Amino acid sequence: MLSRDTIRQLSRIVGRRHCRTDPEDLICYGYDATDLRYNPEAVVFPADVQEIVAIVRLANEIPFYLIPRGAGSGMSGGSLPVRGGVVLGLSRMNRILSIDPENMVAVVEPGVVTGHLQEELAEQGLFYPPDPASLAFCTIGGNVAECAGGARALKYGVTKDYVIGLEAVLASGELVKTGVQTAKGVVGYDLTKLLVGSEGTLAIITKVVLKLLPQPESRRMLMAVFNRLNEAVEAVTKIIGAGLLPSALEFMDQRSIQCVEDYLQIGLPRDAGALLLIEVDGVREGVVRHAEEIRTLCLGQGARQVEVAANEEEAETLWQARRAVSPALFKLNPHKVSEDIAVPRSRIPDIVAKLEEIGQRFRLIILCFGHAGDGNVHVNIMIDRNDADEVARTEQAVNEIFQATLALGGTLSGEHGIGITKIPYLGMEIDKLGLEAMRRIKKAFDPRGILNPGKIFLDSD
Amino acid sequence: MLSRDTIRQLSRIVGRRHCRTDPEDLICYGYDATDLRYNPEAVVFPADVQEIVAIVRLANEIPFYLIPRGAGSGMSGGSLPVRGGVVLGLSRMNRILSIDPENMVAVVEPGVVTGHLQEELAEQGLFYPPDPASLAFCTIGGNVAECAGGARALKYGVTKDYVIGLEAVLASGELVKTGVQTAKGVVGYDLTKLLVGSEGTLAIITKVVLKLLPQPESRRMLMAVFNRLNEAVEAVTKIIGAGLLPSALEFMDQRSIQCVEDYLQIGLPRDAGALLLIEVDGVREGVVRHAEEIRTLCLGQGARQVEVAANEEEAETLWQARRAVSPALFKLNPHKVSEDIAVPRSRIPDIVAKLEEIGQRFRLIILCFGHAGDGNVHVNIMIDRNDADEVARTEQAVNEIFQATLALGGTLSGEHGIGITKIPYLGMEIDKLGLEAMRRIKKAFDPRGILNPGKIFLDSD
Repeated sequence: MLSRDTIRQLSRIVGRRHCRTDPEDLICYGYDATDLRYNPEAVVFPADVQEIVAIVRLANEIPFYLIPRGAGSGMSGGSLPVRGGVVLGLSRMNRILSIDPENMVAVVEPGVVTGHLQEELAEQGLFYPPDPASLAFCTIGGNVAECAGGARALKYGVTKDYVIGLEAVLASGELVKTGVQTAKGVVGYDLTKLLVGSEGTLAIITKVVLKLLPQPESRRMLMAVFNRLNEAVEAVTKIIGAGLLPSALEFMDQRSIQCVEDYLQIGLPRDAGALLLIEVDGVREGVVRHAEEIRTLCLGQGARQVEVAANEEEAETLWQARRAVSPALFKLNPHKVSEDIAVPRSRIPDIVAKLEEIGQRFRLIILCFGHAGDGNVHVNIMIDRNDADEVARTEQAVNEIFQATLALGGTLSGEHGIGITKIPYLGMEIDKLGLEAMRRIKKAFDPRGILNPGKIFLDSD
Repeated sequence: MLSRDTIRQLSRIVGRRHCRTDPEDLICYGYDATDLRYNPEAVVFPADVQEIVAIVRLANEIPFYLIPRGAGSGMSGGSLPVRGGVVLGLSRMNRILSIDPENMVAVVEPGVVTGHLQEELAEQGLFYPPDPASLAFCTIGGNVAECAGGARALKYGVTKDYVIGLEAVLASGELVKTGVQTAKGVVGYDLTKLLVGSEGTLAIITKVVLKLLPQPESRRMLMAVFNRLNEAVEAVTKIIGAGLLPSALEFMDQRSIQCVEDYLQIGLPRDAGALLLIEVDGVREGVVRHAEEIRTLCLGQGARQVEVAANEEEAETLWQARRAVSPALFKLNPHKVSEDIAVPRSRIPDIVAKLEEIGQRFRLIILCFGHAGDGNVHVNIMIDRNDADEVARTEQAVNEIFQATLALGGTLSGEHGIGITKIPYLGMEIDKLGLEAMRRIKKAFDPRGILNPGKIFLDSD
């Protein structure tokens, strides 16, 4: 428990308004996009890096745990204060510090909302591709901590591919700069990429240097409607196999379609077995030609209908539908067990068949949707946690899903991270040596275990 | 010194033919593309990972240093046995283990020659972009160790951007697998990207999983001839500023042009102040249109001539010219001090002006060429190391070049790595905390300092 004196010292650092200990505040900053909750002992909102340095020094002195937090939209519990301690809310550090069109580099604070940054950049003809479904409210700092992906990862990669430099406060309270502001740089070990995806366990990110691209000349969005999920995933394999590289290639199964349609009422085909949402971008002429090739391929694979969005507005409606899947699912059952497996893309038909079989065998509602183009399937099991039998069946099912994923050459998490929800399964994928290496890195960066404890791996297994 | 018994044990592991201790062999494996030499005590050529494991165990038992080596084409001394020990030549482990067109992934051994892999992939319509100038002989293992770049990094990134998984032998002799075979993966700390660019100091890479792209539909190569270097670098800024993203945007200054022309005699304009070699690739129609836009931009910036290569053969000749610059320079003077700075691309005119001024002031032959599009300038000072005064002036000049580079927001090395040649300057760019973090990582991976000692940072500063 934090003493009154510690709270007073925290208040002195950030100002009384920005240090919260009321029960209602503690509840508000103890959740994320999982349905798990852990109350912190205090929440502080530093204004700048100097305040963070002071907080980390105090954390060492007392000591107490520090849990960095962006918008709390994480899918694996990475920002939850599972052992209490002080949540470090970074929402006030939300400035875009610079946008440099000549060098295609932006420098931002961690609290900048991803979608907001993308809009600002688009006005200058610039493009920051990573687009997690939560982009309207998630923050760059959280994206960096979890190495967020998104639909456009298929063509453009994930957060890691765009972070070229960082400023961060280490667990000791010291400020470190990593990486470069240039397109290339190989000076010593790549601390930048090590911090990206480290889920707040190695350092507190205070500034992010992002590589940018020029906006593509043109984009086109297609929706392909299939009677059967199988046909849709086979079409995905054909599209990629044809050497086309869409900027997004998303799929939704029937239940996902129905949930979204109930939620948004935008006219999605409730009777369809599956939808593909396909975006192509790039050079004008290529976009037109590739969209036509994709349309033909989909029809050849049994699509009953392929529509091309007539304009940006129609395309945006389809994107909204896709991004609404995750929240819409709660209609089905009060709780969601959300997995984020990725398999080599040619194995999507296999994993989808396996998911169906597992769902039937364990009598569970399993929905899937996600990034078909890069093999990243969001598997959602909708349950009622008050039903102990259902919970037990779910645990068995998850175990089998992970086993099947790894057997297909896949990974437990494509873009959500380990956080706390996947800790029990980490050893299925990472061998003992890998875990040891990670633990030694954690120890090297945070010997006293101040930063975001209880994440990624258990301290003592 | 290695004992006879140790040599016998090494011979037993790899076979007598593959363990060399003759003076002529030791000389052959004690050099790289710098003009520095350090003899190892033995050179071994393991056939497979089991033999590497056995060698590393022996290295721990005796103990002795191990220095992994690809083709010895490194530009910063990364593979030189500066403290003796055993060179681990990986040339026999040169198999392409699998190419998977459906998932666009290849798995290769470290000794595969980069250009050879690219040719094999091209036959299947696949593309591995990193293209260091030495691609005809350098190896993927060396590329991974140094995080090699190349001309196409401007559009496609560097080696790191394509390595998604690794198998490696740790300093303890244990075998670790990192990363994934899928397009995405965020399971724990990113050990893969940490090993890429670690210059053989953290582990011995035994298998590399590479992400691939489809081959672009079309490519076109242009050569723009300028009377003045200034005009050429201004044209670079205009091209990038116009939102065009060529697949390569290379420049050569007058002396580089003359050296290459003397060496290859292919009709380069000896009187030109500078050349730009520009490659555009992608969708057919876009390539034609962008090449035309670039031609117009170059003429507008004062190019006296812009030629478009009529066919692949002509394009290849221009590439050969570009790749021949580095070896061709030795015509000017027996020794080369080769730097590899990178600046934000808009600052290329500034750094080029500064280089001219420094060259005049210190009475040195300074040539520059390189990757103008991504700000990565290869600065070469041609000297005679027997001239003590020239050596002293060079040292001063290099110091000033680095100071100017950092002042412009640049980095000491875009793609060659630190190796040994840049150790004295590392502290100019990486602060104390960053160095400490790197040293702790080294300690975590290689507590006894068996692997590639004396590289990146001094053990004791």
